[in-house]
Amino acid sequence: MSPEPQLFLDHWHRIVARRDLDALRAVLADDVRLGAPPYWAKLEGKDVVCHLLGIVIHTIEDFTYRREWCNGAELALEFTGHVKGQDLQGIDLITLNAEGRISNLDVLMRPVNTVIALREVVAPQMAAFLAQKQQG
Amino acid sequence: MSPEPQLFLDHWHRIVARRDLDALRAVLADDVRLGAPPYWAKLEGKDVVCHLLGIVIHTIEDFTYRREWCNGAELALEFTGHVKGQDLQGIDLITLNAEGRISNLDVLMRPVNTVIALREVVAPQMAAFLAQKQQG
Repeated sequence: MSPEPQLFLDHWHRIVARRDLDALRAVLADDVRLGAPPYWAKLEGKDVVCHLLGIVIHTIEDFTYRREWCNGAELALEFTGHVKGQDLQGIDLITLNAEGRISNLDVLMRPVNTVIALREVVAPQMAAFLAQKQQG
Repeated sequence: MSPEPQLFLDHWHRIVARRDLDALRAVLADDVRLGAPPYWAKLEGKDVVCHLLGIVIHTIEDFTYRREWCNGAELALEFTGHVKGQDLQGIDLITLNAEGRISNLDVLMRPVNTVIALREVVAPQMAAFLAQKQQG
């Protein structure tokens, strides 16, 4: 593992542990793209992605990182947690840009029932955010 | 990457490309466990896991491996494909045992609609296989 991804990882773990949304925002590229578990179309842009990740961080209980893989600027971070008491296993597939910021993040999870439970919590909050953003 | 996982990877790619179920069976540990995308409970044992993987290999169209990560005996293999024309991104999280066989395989996929489409194809075939196995 080259030093830069390890630095990113240390920083990323602090951000998630502290649910520090300002620091989270700072590690996202302006044009970051996020592939969320429920949908194929990607979310784009720092505002939208940061808002979604903030909701998710506060919704998944017992969020814990497990196995980690690093291959240059491509990272794979496994995690486990619970949503409404249901078990969850997931992985963050992260691409870092030349500045060490996240340019792409794909999030895959199992099982389906827990993904649907998470979507039920997250989707209304994201819809409200996007409506407000459009008005503003 | 240590030599053994690289050997496994070369072998694995040949197995999947040729849909070679005998060779697939040979790289599974007897007590292999598989965490499938739709369910939390794991499938256990070489017969059941090999049968499921055989169905999946024949169901996902345009199956293509993408990014790969290796950390000792822990591998993460991203793939893409289609099910009934719907896009699919997935990852195989593989643990190799001391003999270089797969002792655990967790499969995570997005988006939800494609996982459900896959389940609709796979579940009836697995139910028939399990019923037959129970009778036998």
